[in-house]
Amino acid sequence: MSRTMRLDSTKHRSINREVGVKEIEQQFKGKTSRGSDILAQHSHDESFHLPSQPDIVVYAESTDDVSECLAICTRHQLPVIPFGVGTSLEGHVNALHGGVSLDMSRMNRLLRISADDLDCTVQAGILRKQLAKELVSHGLFFPVDPGADATIGGMTATGASGTTTVKYGAMRELVLSMKVVLPNGTVIETGRRARKTSAGYDLTHLFLGSEGTLGVITEVTLRLFGIPEATAAATVQFNDLHSAVSAVIAIIQLGVGVARVELLDKAAVKSVNTYSKTVLPEQNMLLLEFHGSKEVVDHEAKLAGAILADHGGTGFTFSTDQAERTVLWQARHDAAWAIRAQRAGAQIFVTDVCVPISRLADCITQTHADIAVSSIFGPIIGHVGDGNFHVIVVVRPDDVEEMHNVESFNERLITRALEMGGTCTGEHGIGVGKIPYLLRELGPDAVALMRAIKQAVDPMGLMNPGKIVAKI
Amino acid sequence: MSRTMRLDSTKHRSINREVGVKEIEQQFKGKTSRGSDILAQHSHDESFHLPSQPDIVVYAESTDDVSECLAICTRHQLPVIPFGVGTSLEGHVNALHGGVSLDMSRMNRLLRISADDLDCTVQAGILRKQLAKELVSHGLFFPVDPGADATIGGMTATGASGTTTVKYGAMRELVLSMKVVLPNGTVIETGRRARKTSAGYDLTHLFLGSEGTLGVITEVTLRLFGIPEATAAATVQFNDLHSAVSAVIAIIQLGVGVARVELLDKAAVKSVNTYSKTVLPEQNMLLLEFHGSKEVVDHEAKLAGAILADHGGTGFTFSTDQAERTVLWQARHDAAWAIRAQRAGAQIFVTDVCVPISRLADCITQTHADIAVSSIFGPIIGHVGDGNFHVIVVVRPDDVEEMHNVESFNERLITRALEMGGTCTGEHGIGVGKIPYLLRELGPDAVALMRAIKQAVDPMGLMNPGKIVAKI
Repeated sequence: MSRTMRLDSTKHRSINREVGVKEIEQQFKGKTSRGSDILAQHSHDESFHLPSQPDIVVYAESTDDVSECLAICTRHQLPVIPFGVGTSLEGHVNALHGGVSLDMSRMNRLLRISADDLDCTVQAGILRKQLAKELVSHGLFFPVDPGADATIGGMTATGASGTTTVKYGAMRELVLSMKVVLPNGTVIETGRRARKTSAGYDLTHLFLGSEGTLGVITEVTLRLFGIPEATAAATVQFNDLHSAVSAVIAIIQLGVGVARVELLDKAAVKSVNTYSKTVLPEQNMLLLEFHGSKEVVDHEAKLAGAILADHGGTGFTFSTDQAERTVLWQARHDAAWAIRAQRAGAQIFVTDVCVPISRLADCITQTHADIAVSSIFGPIIGHVGDGNFHVIVVVRPDDVEEMHNVESFNERLITRALEMGGTCTGEHGIGVGKIPYLLRELGPDAVALMRAIKQAVDPMGLMNPGKIVAKI
Repeated sequence: MSRTMRLDSTKHRSINREVGVKEIEQQFKGKTSRGSDILAQHSHDESFHLPSQPDIVVYAESTDDVSECLAICTRHQLPVIPFGVGTSLEGHVNALHGGVSLDMSRMNRLLRISADDLDCTVQAGILRKQLAKELVSHGLFFPVDPGADATIGGMTATGASGTTTVKYGAMRELVLSMKVVLPNGTVIETGRRARKTSAGYDLTHLFLGSEGTLGVITEVTLRLFGIPEATAAATVQFNDLHSAVSAVIAIIQLGVGVARVELLDKAAVKSVNTYSKTVLPEQNMLLLEFHGSKEVVDHEAKLAGAILADHGGTGFTFSTDQAERTVLWQARHDAAWAIRAQRAGAQIFVTDVCVPISRLADCITQTHADIAVSSIFGPIIGHVGDGNFHVIVVVRPDDVEEMHNVESFNERLITRALEMGGTCTGEHGIGVGKIPYLLRELGPDAVALMRAIKQAVDPMGLMNPGKIVAKI
């Protein structure tokens, strides 16, 4: 992390910057740091994007802290970057214009849980695995599971999804409301706990996916689900990728109730075997899961098994054993790290297109062919039930030529997805990395509308500047 | 419809009004009307709210028409009120400040359907029953079914839901993207056809539920579902309301997969019997439906039947017969008209609270007691699986004292729902009728944020003025 990047635009090179930082240090005694390790930790996420340090890190302990901090920052025109644990993948938390990195990790409590209403309210800094632990004793779970152990606030701000989205939905469907601090320090609730509402503009979805550019999410109310009576996992191998994806498309189109359906291509399976000491057959693999009553799970798994066999799937294995399932899914969740570990000292460049499911087999096979001719090491893993897949490209960001090659590959991939009616990002967000693609995806008038909204909510442009709607 | 209402605020009393109207007549030859019947038809929805006539009705035939019309209206500062078929319930389409009623009924085509992707794109003016007819030959259906035969555009603009929301979700979950004309005439697409995305601010949800106050929706891309292999309907009677609702809560909490679960109280059942010549037992009734494979439907219905019996439900009947089911659901959909027909020449005043499901039994029984002491004729029907229910109060809007009584009742009901963590509107929207309640529900800072967004998107305040965020 020797290289850094800092955009000292005129707008944010406030003469009061140091005065503001001092006031914040004074105001939040015991809750700030300017230590170089801490600043470095808050300068980047898990991606290849160049780090960029904040001037100071503030550890918020309450919504009041956040409100006070934002009021001070507004007074001194200091940028504010909300920070969860830094597991995003498009440079979302990099402090491009310096300012305050507002670390939410101390706001990590489960505030309220209702088994009757199947919902809970958490502070934004709670980690998803910590939440899972607290919910399990109530017989409940929250399904969204990005690979990393992210904070719920970060997952909300990014519009995350995961392996179970095919059945339960993404953050977009599962966040009922939020508490948000606006740039001027005002605190609002975006909605109520009712399961549905038509009360005015949808502020919940305005902040969901806004990546800290409109305000700071401090609390989130989530929909929960009862842990299903029965869960079964299945794996199946395919010689060719196109058949594997076609099988999934058929499963989705026929309405078979899968709870998870993940693809790992041959290269990804090999990486996982090496890293996680598993002995998975080294072919393209689908990993499926079924949730429900015992009868329903058996019925759905049988249906799926028949469809998979019809499409050339072999070695269908099926397990309701908890320990076996845990190992299997841990391997899946570790896939990105497994792939990165194949090349010492490298970073990952993760693509994230999502296309209408009818185009998925074509999109994946064309992309696989492109990988082969591009001299890229990039295994494919995907939430194929949603039409979403990732190429986990392993790169050395210092190598200009290699980065150029990978960026060209990504541009071809996104162009392919956009032409198929898809999106440049299914779940990672825009951050700093996809700003030009957002423009291509929705066009200048839609982006101008986003900028008008940004201007209305954050007129000084202090909230996570340089992201989503920034002019670059 | 002799009484009318017209707010000639200075803002909208443009000196160019007549010039603008003339220009529109000129520009849209054969597509406008200023006939008194037509103006009257476009002055109101199906609610008790006072009618208010536009200056002219324009029948848009394309997105280009809408764009051109909005550009002219902007030039002459003429208000624009998008109009579907006028089945809303909070005065959404009443032309409070005159201007152009932009009738979308000629834009009624199904533009594209993909059985593979389970989605379609329609023009905003298509009626939901017309769409259903076109989809059935493809083995598909779109589940959202408000009582009225509304347009898909109107349902999108209001954030509608219906009897199947408990399983399939509301418009909020089922609209993938829209084509929208902004106030200055610019045309945008809010998103892509991919099943999920994290690309920038969520413009789809910004316009969903915006009730024509931010722009005009001209096309909508919808998620579709395969017609289930098996469908079964069940009815069951309860002596007391609290037990009926408690049974539903148990069904939801235990994760039984109902596709519909509707409550009609005794008064509603009586009205339906009289109006629809049905012979339903005149007790509180639950009407349930199950969708899936034959095995799943049988299994879920059996589970539900046991839970209902445990809670005191009697006379559980179960039918997979299509004709029987159609009669039953037609009766349910006609309930509001059936209730209105109990009092000649009256209008309906429909309440619409939605509460967390754990509070639903209390909310409904307290409301039932309030009806009894308030000298109101107001049967209760509800999408109880969502926590949402309606009191269909039959009123004579001319009777000032009666209206005052009903409004007090509604205020008590909303207060009760808000105190229980609920919302003042589950699916009807704010329109003109619920502006003060929106303020109470979300507070002045959240409403101020909505106003800032309105100002950013529609700086001249021409889009459906007087609704949602208007200062009254």
